[in-house]
Amino acid sequence: MQDWLSDTLKKLNTTSDMNQPNGFSRLSYSPEEAKAHEAFRSVATELGLTVEQDEAGNQWATWVVGKDAPTIAVGSHLDTVHGGGGYDGVAGVLTGLAAVKQLKDQGVAPNKNIAVICFASEESARFGVSTIGSKAVSGLLDKADLAAVPDQDGHTVKEVCESFGLNWETIDQAEKPASFLESFLELHIEQGTQVEDHNADIGIVEGVACPIRLKITAQGMANHTGTTPMHKRQDALAAVAPLITFVEEEALKRNDTLEKQLVATVSTLHVQPNAMNVIPGEVQVGIDIRSVDDTAKRTLAEDIREYCKQIEAKRKVNFHIEVAVDNDSVTLDGSMQHQLHSICQSLDYKVLSMDSGAGHDVMNMALRWPSALLFIPCKEGISHHPAEYATMADLEKGSHIIAEYLKVETGDECENQDRSHRAIGLS
Amino acid sequence: MQDWLSDTLKKLNTTSDMNQPNGFSRLSYSPEEAKAHEAFRSVATELGLTVEQDEAGNQWATWVVGKDAPTIAVGSHLDTVHGGGGYDGVAGVLTGLAAVKQLKDQGVAPNKNIAVICFASEESARFGVSTIGSKAVSGLLDKADLAAVPDQDGHTVKEVCESFGLNWETIDQAEKPASFLESFLELHIEQGTQVEDHNADIGIVEGVACPIRLKITAQGMANHTGTTPMHKRQDALAAVAPLITFVEEEALKRNDTLEKQLVATVSTLHVQPNAMNVIPGEVQVGIDIRSVDDTAKRTLAEDIREYCKQIEAKRKVNFHIEVAVDNDSVTLDGSMQHQLHSICQSLDYKVLSMDSGAGHDVMNMALRWPSALLFIPCKEGISHHPAEYATMADLEKGSHIIAEYLKVETGDECENQDRSHRAIGLS
Repeated sequence: MQDWLSDTLKKLNTTSDMNQPNGFSRLSYSPEEAKAHEAFRSVATELGLTVEQDEAGNQWATWVVGKDAPTIAVGSHLDTVHGGGGYDGVAGVLTGLAAVKQLKDQGVAPNKNIAVICFASEESARFGVSTIGSKAVSGLLDKADLAAVPDQDGHTVKEVCESFGLNWETIDQAEKPASFLESFLELHIEQGTQVEDHNADIGIVEGVACPIRLKITAQGMANHTGTTPMHKRQDALAAVAPLITFVEEEALKRNDTLEKQLVATVSTLHVQPNAMNVIPGEVQVGIDIRSVDDTAKRTLAEDIREYCKQIEAKRKVNFHIEVAVDNDSVTLDGSMQHQLHSICQSLDYKVLSMDSGAGHDVMNMALRWPSALLFIPCKEGISHHPAEYATMADLEKGSHIIAEYLKVETGDECENQDRSHRAIGLS
Repeated sequence: MQDWLSDTLKKLNTTSDMNQPNGFSRLSYSPEEAKAHEAFRSVATELGLTVEQDEAGNQWATWVVGKDAPTIAVGSHLDTVHGGGGYDGVAGVLTGLAAVKQLKDQGVAPNKNIAVICFASEESARFGVSTIGSKAVSGLLDKADLAAVPDQDGHTVKEVCESFGLNWETIDQAEKPASFLESFLELHIEQGTQVEDHNADIGIVEGVACPIRLKITAQGMANHTGTTPMHKRQDALAAVAPLITFVEEEALKRNDTLEKQLVATVSTLHVQPNAMNVIPGEVQVGIDIRSVDDTAKRTLAEDIREYCKQIEAKRKVNFHIEVAVDNDSVTLDGSMQHQLHSICQSLDYKVLSMDSGAGHDVMNMALRWPSALLFIPCKEGISHHPAEYATMADLEKGSHIIAEYLKVETGDECENQDRSHRAIGLS
């Protein structure tokens, strides 16, 4: 199995050598992403799957057992950030295909259709918008808003989709009704070290922490660094400094008592005019706050707002606060988690129940279908970087879990199970 | 006199209306600076002065009374920052010319040559290098270092000087020997509000506070904002925040006991990668510290270095500190200050003795010749901005002081004075 995984990993990365000092660059809807999709179609066809591209450029490779049979889906994406790694996204597509191969090799005859989905354009690196393909499938695409969003070369999403061979007018027809799928399972590299830190084999994710993001502008007054006395300044950067400290200290402090962990980061800062002999007149601050505990993240955002008022009261600097993003966190399906725990126990894999701090295609799918997310470890938590790495052993374990899951879900014993009923039983 | 000042102000700004919403843009050695120099030559010629351009593009307008007579000089510059005001530099050139006009109108016959200098390329806005013209005159030009310095369009100083009509090979021949001048006096807008705050008419500057500038790189590690727990981060921006606070607090605190005021500013900050979902991995910080008390500014720089070590000890973030600039402050000539105080007293102008936090052409000239600097108020201290403004009344007062100074210095009673001797007497 590891040989097949290793070969197919390279195929999906369209490379003969995973050791790439500059990493992989398959931006959203780029010719490089199309080339990876083509490799996916080729591997899936070899496995005897029926491959179709939907209106948003997602690839669906289906083991069709019957036109009216229910379908369960697994998958992830093949696009990357600029100079990214070869496992983010690829791991989920690869292990999905590997699981199908195992079923085929074992002569399993599923009683449901099995789809391996390769979602288009998951990364936000090109357009600042993530998971376009899975948004389209889940009916979450805002076509009007998205059309004119440019990449850094000025090419819009619409233009780029059309270069990819899509028809912008029909892109939203990629949406599937709830009846189309029975469930969705994604496997992804963790992009953190919790699984490793807990000496576990696999992470089973309970919730995806979607962010609240604040854009704060501190407006002071630019002036000459040499001629403006200290007590007469309206230094926007000096006003922002204690805010940066506050965000970090509050997140650390709150985690002492919160059940679900909170992370908060001042991640972007733009200083105007940013010249050596001029006092900063304006600073734009970006703050990213995440927790699956939506109340905790919104309370911190509110307290940041209050803290800005305290700074304003002490200094001649004004703060303008805009909530750029505020998405509810996503709770994943309880019965699927339970199922995956049982499978891991039977395989003797140690499990960590955890939350995801990063967004994935599954967060969109979960709003329409019962969905689950598995994390395999990645070396030192490094991701979006040429050094991103997951072992063949961990990829293989992931593929075994998915294969067992597919067997259980598509076997006779599951035929009449009602997922929503089981979910209520567990909640 | 105010009518002449107002007309000539417009001529030197090559405009018919000082009210320019986008300000004035006469960058170093640009065609716009050349046009202002041409206006200067025209006004000076009308006043009967002999105008020459030196090898560095400085304009010298001289009232020649004898080939072997000593020469005293006044002046400033006509170049501006991008979108700057019409008074920074222009005020000194204008009042120098106006003083000559007053002597001529009064039929004064000086016994020394009087030169009004219009220095080229004082602002650092184009090349990051200031006072090129006066550096050349004072023998401070580092031609080899300067030649390849580019502007933001990639044009080098050498190329631009040659477009200005200069010969780069001979630019350093603009240097004048100590015997060439007896003294130099510059008038400038204050670019601060101390004169106004003290309800004074004029500032007489004792020293020019040249900066010490630190470039600090904080090296942490970039990572995902969502998947990296708070206690496992190497956040370079969170590490830098207390440093920004430290710089401001220490400058404020030290000013309680320092005789000469200190200003310290974190003026530039570059965050890498500066992306909403990535923890800052590297931050570059620029710090500008100024005081005429060189010990005070260097002590603060040393304490900043120590403070960075304290941060390093607490966090997995490393600091690299580079001293980009460390210039001794310049003490101006005591006897000239004394002279100017007497003149202001006789004119009934209230004087503030002060230091300059900004650099000016005089700081170079003072290293070779006895030199002095006068500050007239500018509205709200605003400078390098279209709203920069000085009143005609203040420009006129400045011109009267310079006229009186020229009369005293070039009258019979001063013929045999030894400036350096007087300076010792006052020190």
